[in-house]
Amino acid sequence: MSSKVEQIQKYLQKTGVEAAFITTPENVFYLSGFLSDPHERLLGIMIFKDTAPLMICPKMEVPDAKAAGWSYEVIGHDDKEDAWEVLATKVASLVGGIQSLAIEKSHLTVERLELLQRFYPNSTVSGIDQLLTDMRIVKSEDELVKLREAAKLADYAIQVGCDELAEGKTELEVLSAIEAAILKKGYYMSFDTMVLTGLNAASPHGTPGNTKIKKGDLVLFDLGVVYEGYCSDITRTVAFGEPGEDQKAVYNAVLNANLAAIELAKPGVPVMDLDKAARDQISNAGFGEYFTHRLGHGLGIGVHEIPSIHGGNELPLVEGMVFTIEPGVYKGDTAGVRIEDDVVVTKDGLEILTKFPKELQIF
Amino acid sequence: MSSKVEQIQKYLQKTGVEAAFITTPENVFYLSGFLSDPHERLLGIMIFKDTAPLMICPKMEVPDAKAAGWSYEVIGHDDKEDAWEVLATKVASLVGGIQSLAIEKSHLTVERLELLQRFYPNSTVSGIDQLLTDMRIVKSEDELVKLREAAKLADYAIQVGCDELAEGKTELEVLSAIEAAILKKGYYMSFDTMVLTGLNAASPHGTPGNTKIKKGDLVLFDLGVVYEGYCSDITRTVAFGEPGEDQKAVYNAVLNANLAAIELAKPGVPVMDLDKAARDQISNAGFGEYFTHRLGHGLGIGVHEIPSIHGGNELPLVEGMVFTIEPGVYKGDTAGVRIEDDVVVTKDGLEILTKFPKELQIF
Repeated sequence: MSSKVEQIQKYLQKTGVEAAFITTPENVFYLSGFLSDPHERLLGIMIFKDTAPLMICPKMEVPDAKAAGWSYEVIGHDDKEDAWEVLATKVASLVGGIQSLAIEKSHLTVERLELLQRFYPNSTVSGIDQLLTDMRIVKSEDELVKLREAAKLADYAIQVGCDELAEGKTELEVLSAIEAAILKKGYYMSFDTMVLTGLNAASPHGTPGNTKIKKGDLVLFDLGVVYEGYCSDITRTVAFGEPGEDQKAVYNAVLNANLAAIELAKPGVPVMDLDKAARDQISNAGFGEYFTHRLGHGLGIGVHEIPSIHGGNELPLVEGMVFTIEPGVYKGDTAGVRIEDDVVVTKDGLEILTKFPKELQIF
Repeated sequence: MSSKVEQIQKYLQKTGVEAAFITTPENVFYLSGFLSDPHERLLGIMIFKDTAPLMICPKMEVPDAKAAGWSYEVIGHDDKEDAWEVLATKVASLVGGIQSLAIEKSHLTVERLELLQRFYPNSTVSGIDQLLTDMRIVKSEDELVKLREAAKLADYAIQVGCDELAEGKTELEVLSAIEAAILKKGYYMSFDTMVLTGLNAASPHGTPGNTKIKKGDLVLFDLGVVYEGYCSDITRTVAFGEPGEDQKAVYNAVLNANLAAIELAKPGVPVMDLDKAARDQISNAGFGEYFTHRLGHGLGIGVHEIPSIHGGNELPLVEGMVFTIEPGVYKGDTAGVRIEDDVVVTKDGLEILTKFPKELQIF
């Protein structure tokens, strides 16, 4: 029995809930290794208190699910069938009825719960979202291998962007070259790439457009790449031509904030202390009011996971947590600068996954 | 009062439901002109039986919602507030309590319904999904203007792909050039672009990879572009070098199927007749078993809408419906060919939005 499935079974045994139905594609992937976007079709894993689990997926994907490493039963459904009935029939043959069921309340729609409950009309329904979220917060070595590769691809994408910088090129021209380079390697971005030049980077509403790069601009790149289901998320701000002293002052404040948080992080340190360490650097430099967001967020199969790295989060760091450290200053008349790394908590500090240089690069 | 809001109000008056809460970003856009992806934050429109409607969105987006043309009230919420409480407080001030509520059951999660129902613990809940889906099936002239532009961009993207074809280039190289060209213009694809060469196009599991284009290949492009919230979806199959007679036979069968469905379509004709007309052409050419999917699907704000163009759908065509016509033959030892147009039902036939040539193009 896989240890992840076992962990959910233990939860069911402890709480007395008979079965959990997991339906987010991310959590199906997390539990099974099978990465699939079923669109409107049914994909899910039913985990029982005392019986081996069961996956249901579109019929044509059954071989893929098995090939991905799911060693338990998989049943398929086709478009001519009621997928929920296919599931219920199989469940009945395995465990009889279900009186208490856990679902992912933050994912399952009202319609889908109604479709499911046709077969368990008197069952109680509880949420299992938190358990899965909590399980995913600490990454295994297998996951770290993928996160490292995703970060390498992000470093490469930043390099492509820097190589594209030229007087008069638009943000969109640079952005399209970056995404093309990643697609050409067969990978997808983990979110829409941002390339913002000059004061566009200082606007909270900045979106890439036809603004041209000119000498003296700071250019902000924010992007990420998916590697075997795992996301990276990097931001670098570089200079095109020699920047002014006021821009350098903003840059240095943000860099010091990034470094201060990294310096402090190790197991046992509360998340909020990282946010404070970074924020203090920026405030001391006189830019406190322009650092308008939290310091970072967890990262993994999702591009936004827990822990949320903000000033109110008392959670202590634990070895294997992966998150971003991304202080920023957005001063509308001077510059927008953000420097974002992906990091893993190690035994006594941090491993930094994103390695593109952080000293101000001038092109 | 906008006619769309009025239509929902009439439904509420007829059914006696006091309010409808619309939360899909697509339907919020459809009703308000405000196109936004709020991620995990709350965005919705509450439409009351007899009172002017109300939008709730993240506070920083309130000006955007108004600028987009929503002329009714907008309230904002920030991350420090309980957005549902902000909404409920406002609703109470407008209409008092709510005893009966319609929601989008296929979109609202169980968790969100629970958050909402804290304030209306004894209310009945019904679904309003079908009404919105039905309203969107016939497009207005405003919508057609955008769909025509989206289709033009799709034609352009196919041309970019054809211009990229060269001996030894990979599918991913061609694909990345297409997406870069669209991004450079400031637009996004409506789904992940497909470029498949040779027998890859004949596999139901074909995904773009490092297969190289070689003389005699048929190359299949399937792509779409979003223009101001509206999607196109085009497929063209072209030849790189002179194809063999067996490939041409497949191509001609698919082209004849596409043309037969187009020829037949006009108001009043049942959808299923189009599917049959296309399928007959392919069957008569001896490839019936290799046409493994429905003829097409509706298109608009979503890339898959109603009507579903399949052999069991008796719905008669109505002026203003927009859908794809995309017969395909996937014969594993010979060729994969699909030809897909976006069409609008006119007074006496069809307007074809996608204009890239359909006679076999040889590069």
